[in-house]
Amino acid sequence: MKKLLNKVENVVPEMLEGLAKSNPNIYKLDGYNVIVRKNKANKVTLVSGGGAGHEPAHAGYVTYGMLDAAVSGEVFTSPTPDQVLAAIKEVGNEKGVLLVVKNYTGDVMNFEMAADFAQMENINVKSVIVNDDIAVENSLYTVGKRGVAGTVLVHKIAGSAAEDGHDLEYVAQIAQEVVDNTATLGMSLGGCTVPASGKKSFELAEDEIEMGLGIHGEPGTHKEKIKSSEEHVKYMLDKLLEHSKVTENDEICVLVNGLGATTLMELYVINNDVNKYLESKKIKIHKNLVGNYMTSLEMPGFSITVLKLSEKTKKYMDFDIKNNLF
Amino acid sequence: MKKLLNKVENVVPEMLEGLAKSNPNIYKLDGYNVIVRKNKANKVTLVSGGGAGHEPAHAGYVTYGMLDAAVSGEVFTSPTPDQVLAAIKEVGNEKGVLLVVKNYTGDVMNFEMAADFAQMENINVKSVIVNDDIAVENSLYTVGKRGVAGTVLVHKIAGSAAEDGHDLEYVAQIAQEVVDNTATLGMSLGGCTVPASGKKSFELAEDEIEMGLGIHGEPGTHKEKIKSSEEHVKYMLDKLLEHSKVTENDEICVLVNGLGATTLMELYVINNDVNKYLESKKIKIHKNLVGNYMTSLEMPGFSITVLKLSEKTKKYMDFDIKNNLF
Repeated sequence: MKKLLNKVENVVPEMLEGLAKSNPNIYKLDGYNVIVRKNKANKVTLVSGGGAGHEPAHAGYVTYGMLDAAVSGEVFTSPTPDQVLAAIKEVGNEKGVLLVVKNYTGDVMNFEMAADFAQMENINVKSVIVNDDIAVENSLYTVGKRGVAGTVLVHKIAGSAAEDGHDLEYVAQIAQEVVDNTATLGMSLGGCTVPASGKKSFELAEDEIEMGLGIHGEPGTHKEKIKSSEEHVKYMLDKLLEHSKVTENDEICVLVNGLGATTLMELYVINNDVNKYLESKKIKIHKNLVGNYMTSLEMPGFSITVLKLSEKTKKYMDFDIKNNLF
Repeated sequence: MKKLLNKVENVVPEMLEGLAKSNPNIYKLDGYNVIVRKNKANKVTLVSGGGAGHEPAHAGYVTYGMLDAAVSGEVFTSPTPDQVLAAIKEVGNEKGVLLVVKNYTGDVMNFEMAADFAQMENINVKSVIVNDDIAVENSLYTVGKRGVAGTVLVHKIAGSAAEDGHDLEYVAQIAQEVVDNTATLGMSLGGCTVPASGKKSFELAEDEIEMGLGIHGEPGTHKEKIKSSEEHVKYMLDKLLEHSKVTENDEICVLVNGLGATTLMELYVINNDVNKYLESKKIKIHKNLVGNYMTSLEMPGFSITVLKLSEKTKKYMDFDIKNNLF
């Protein structure tokens, strides 16, 4: 394995220390793999997290207008309930806490258990489960659809609504509205290497891609020959638009997300095709994000996320925050 | 070659179209590979550029407080003088234009030629040549040191000084001060594939890295076995601190820059080691940037840039801008 690390077993805490040192507005919770915002505000707080290996998700979204804390498991492994509980207790206040959880069996179970413990300590907790990946119904680590890149749009919109002073009921409800209107489809050009295993997760032939692959390398819908950006984009957008019932004159946010090793050059070429195709369908792009938002270590590939906006979600999609990606 | 593209010969204009479509504050100049800021301000303007393949450099830095225009050549190829001239004419005004040029023979020649043409049309132009790479003295495409990731710090500080209303003389002088105090050293774990060639630029053994490699794959100082992040960081910082004469209590900006395919996870582990080592030397990190600022397509590897700050450069390092990386 050719990676720039020290001890493999320390990769998560060292990564979080390195992140915390780069940003004066956050800190790493002592003894936990949890990143927390400084300057606690008297508002509903948001906690998210999941396995490591998807950076900048989720610790990179701990910022004004997004998350208050993020919990990191080991690479591609759910964080334990005690870690999640520590995050909830660190940021919880009388306004309550919203947990934003990607739909993987381990994540859902561990966040739920932590929520139960927190309730026993009189912290009001609600959860929203993100399941935006339309590729497959059940998967290797999931019952139901998987949660992928659309999760960052939930962070953004629910986080901004919380920052704007809304109560837990409203923040949880707008988060659910985003989930209900978000659809993602990804494709991969090859595997990635989890440090603890040291081996590539899977191989594809030199001219082969896998459509609908999950962000931990879970199987997609089918393998096929690599085509032009334009052709892949048309296939993926047709699926996404159909699933999300987006039609002429609808306003959407569209996110072209890199999985790690795909160049920004390619992501922008893809985004050009995304824009041209949506324009031909007379769909209005209100917000267009391009970059590495939810990665799978150094996996080559990308996903497209479509969020059908309402006036309500649009307001908080546009809410002015200070981070490095929106 | 496994890349998500359409026609290889159209990759640069399609990428720039895709970038422009994602950002309502910029546009692509019709018929040119040039990205320009909307809302022209009455101030000194900055133009930079170079070969494509280093995204987000330079078009991603066309924003308030940084660049007014960026010119892109083909991948790893200097832009032609007519392209540079078109950028200068698009943003030039009576306050004058500063060209920020990385030190490669083709770039320097073509930007200089464009500057001469612009002067003939009565546009006042000054240039600053960035040569921050301390690895080697002369190289494949360079006489003298190469210009690499430190260039983005020149964009930031000179761009912010221009935004703050300083004249061309001052902006050129502060840009030169940044160049004089910036040192970068990079290392690579492997090659990348230029679309037009379709083949990997070079290969390294599975346990081998190359120290001091250039951002187009130009030879570095030596090959060696891959070591821990901590060991590589110590070697590189020792060279950088010695070269830039940074000592106890100096204040610096330190940039840990990914070359493309190195995970954010690794960059943060590296950054943790960078912080620990600088702390042990009692050097003060005023600003710490971590991410993919100046890439080599999907090359795995990273560079460290150290900028020794003065009160003057610190002011504009901290100047509040709205972009996705600072």
